[in-house]
Amino acid sequence: MYKAKIQITFKNGVLDPQGSAVKQALHHLGFVSVKDVRIGRLVEILISSQTPLDAENQIKQMCEQLLANPVIEEYRVLSLEEIE
Amino acid sequence: MYKAKIQITFKNGVLDPQGSAVKQALHHLGFVSVKDVRIGRLVEILISSQTPLDAENQIKQMCEQLLANPVIEEYRVLSLEEIE
Repeated sequence: MYKAKIQITFKNGVLDPQGSAVKQALHHLGFVSVKDVRIGRLVEILISSQTPLDAENQIKQMCEQLLANPVIEEYRVLSLEEIE
Repeated sequence: MYKAKIQITFKNGVLDPQGSAVKQALHHLGFVSVKDVRIGRLVEILISSQTPLDAENQIKQMCEQLLANPVIEEYRVLSLEEIE
């Protein structure tokens, strides 16, 4: 069994309305030193596989087929660890 | 100027409907070896501050006041780096 942690963020230059909204809210709370906020997703997947390489390949396919929108998002596998 | 990367995830035991929906979708795509999916948020904040300690304190306050719902979520500051 393997546990993967995947980071999915907007590509540079893509507008992040949620990030802008959070930035405004933080300013209203008095955190005026905040210059920019970007919000992405963190996906943790538990997957049974024979080898780490097979697990990683499946994870990449999942990102490309479903998890990340290739037009506006990019993904990065932050970690892939074997668990009991 | 400092850049913080914050991970916000559901506490253990809290139902993750989005994660369950993604797991089902992955199974439909043929990724039947997926056992569990948990989805969290990744917040990147750019903040101007005199010291790293001050930046970290402000980041923690932002998490506790706005970014993370203390009832069902937990946060972790993954990184805090000075940038030009």
